[in-house]
Amino acid sequence: MDLADIEAAADRIAGLVRRTPLLSTQLGRDDAPLHIKAETLQIGGSFKLRGATNALVQLTSDDRSKGVVTHSSGNHAQALARAARDLGIAATIVMPHNTPRVKLAATAALGAEIVLVDAAQRASTVERLRKETGAVFVPPFDDAAIIAGQGTVGLEIVADLPDVATVFVPVSGGGLVSGIAVAVKALRPQTRVVAVEPALAADLAEGWQRGERVQWDSAQTGRTIADGLRVTSVGELNWRHIREYVDDVVTVQEDAIRAAMRAVLLDAKVVAEPSGAVAVAGYSSYGDSLAAGPAVAVVSGGNVDPALLAEVLA
Amino acid sequence: MDLADIEAAADRIAGLVRRTPLLSTQLGRDDAPLHIKAETLQIGGSFKLRGATNALVQLTSDDRSKGVVTHSSGNHAQALARAARDLGIAATIVMPHNTPRVKLAATAALGAEIVLVDAAQRASTVERLRKETGAVFVPPFDDAAIIAGQGTVGLEIVADLPDVATVFVPVSGGGLVSGIAVAVKALRPQTRVVAVEPALAADLAEGWQRGERVQWDSAQTGRTIADGLRVTSVGELNWRHIREYVDDVVTVQEDAIRAAMRAVLLDAKVVAEPSGAVAVAGYSSYGDSLAAGPAVAVVSGGNVDPALLAEVLA
Repeated sequence: MDLADIEAAADRIAGLVRRTPLLSTQLGRDDAPLHIKAETLQIGGSFKLRGATNALVQLTSDDRSKGVVTHSSGNHAQALARAARDLGIAATIVMPHNTPRVKLAATAALGAEIVLVDAAQRASTVERLRKETGAVFVPPFDDAAIIAGQGTVGLEIVADLPDVATVFVPVSGGGLVSGIAVAVKALRPQTRVVAVEPALAADLAEGWQRGERVQWDSAQTGRTIADGLRVTSVGELNWRHIREYVDDVVTVQEDAIRAAMRAVLLDAKVVAEPSGAVAVAGYSSYGDSLAAGPAVAVVSGGNVDPALLAEVLA
Repeated sequence: MDLADIEAAADRIAGLVRRTPLLSTQLGRDDAPLHIKAETLQIGGSFKLRGATNALVQLTSDDRSKGVVTHSSGNHAQALARAARDLGIAATIVMPHNTPRVKLAATAALGAEIVLVDAAQRASTVERLRKETGAVFVPPFDDAAIIAGQGTVGLEIVADLPDVATVFVPVSGGGLVSGIAVAVKALRPQTRVVAVEPALAADLAEGWQRGERVQWDSAQTGRTIADGLRVTSVGELNWRHIREYVDDVVTVQEDAIRAAMRAVLLDAKVVAEPSGAVAVAGYSSYGDSLAAGPAVAVVSGGNVDPALLAEVLA
């Protein structure tokens, strides 16, 4: 993956995805003002439409006729369902049974067929469906087309804030941080890219320390409120890009994620789902490691259960 | 007031205020898709910075040295305080004592001096302060510079959605709807501009029926949850522009305002304060009167008490 791949993705998806605003905030340190890249305002409420669209527009007409299948805890599901619907492609989504209701309903409303399974059975179920139907698997993160699509977020950040010093990005499977890191480092090598994980789903942080990709158990990662970040390991392709382009990995506590949800809502006036608030929590938790200069936290999505949002505000 | 005044204001305030996004939504009728003009994402969380900035940048250096004074229930206060601070001008804000705490704190944080009075004493207090200090009164709405600044919202709506069929705008003193109506009608005469008021603060709706400007009591208008729309009458200059350029006036119930706050937050992912949600409630309440074609609701601000937002979500 290099900058040209991401620029090609940007050309391919232009007009099909929204160019989201970079919002200044009053949060953060005076010498490192915090900006929010508001992917919560992306169509469908998350960055995932970028990668899914970049993958689908490259399918052959033969592939399109067989439909697509994926597994996802929510936002990739909605993004793929939406992109598929808009291109007239049938989509089947395998989802863990503990997926928030709001995400189930949103995915079904986009016309996808949903198959609910235990989280541990996701991959095997996708494999079975592929064999039965010939559908094309569009993975949520471990895929060059997906990484390139998500990386377009990085192009927009540098275009809007050319002197950006630090970019905080939430990590689940690692597609978003891989793509952003490739783009940002190519355009501005001195900018630091920091990956952020919940401490309760910190497989990347552990692997970063050990120097090898590690896998956590879904019973462990399932503990975090950040339901979009419960993937048990970063992808293999993503791991290689993270090792090469990401500068640091930081973990955040659950109460910091809740505080960040509240802060984003009351200061920047946009909804951050827990997974989307993680990058803001990472900024706040980074302390003395934070360099002077403008910072960006990628608020990756805004699809949240109203009851949780009410609880965080109350 | 004409289009040239508003275009001049746009040139004057460019770079000092944010060009806010127009967000598509899944709310509304298929043949009249609802878009949100997200002034909640304006610097300071409301459209008011547009008018305040347009007024202040035109002051002489002699005027600037004497400071500025105004009365406001909140958003104009913050906007004037911010614009004054950025231009090095002292600002004094007269506020009703029942102003939400979040707005008092935000205004004080911007360096303004706050004078709290009974709502009925606002104008007389401003008059006294003017005489004592020589400060320049920057009115919240009944003023050509303010109307022209707020009207820049209308320019942006038509630029982003050239085939807009209907624009819904909340009304308090009438500066926003006056400016938007002048701009929209000049650029696209066939677009309908609809003013929206809470039924509990419907002085314009009553005046519209009677054909003359009427005044309500602040004890009446104070009943609505929409604290930004409790002004007891539209301004004289605003009334004349509303009569000439606005097509219709519609009123909304309190529960419709709450429902709109919730809908904007969960669908468009941005915070709408009650006054900001009123235009969306107007769209929903307009029923068969709504013409086919794209519609825009101006979500005028997002400065809301967290407890109220939590209550609406719960």
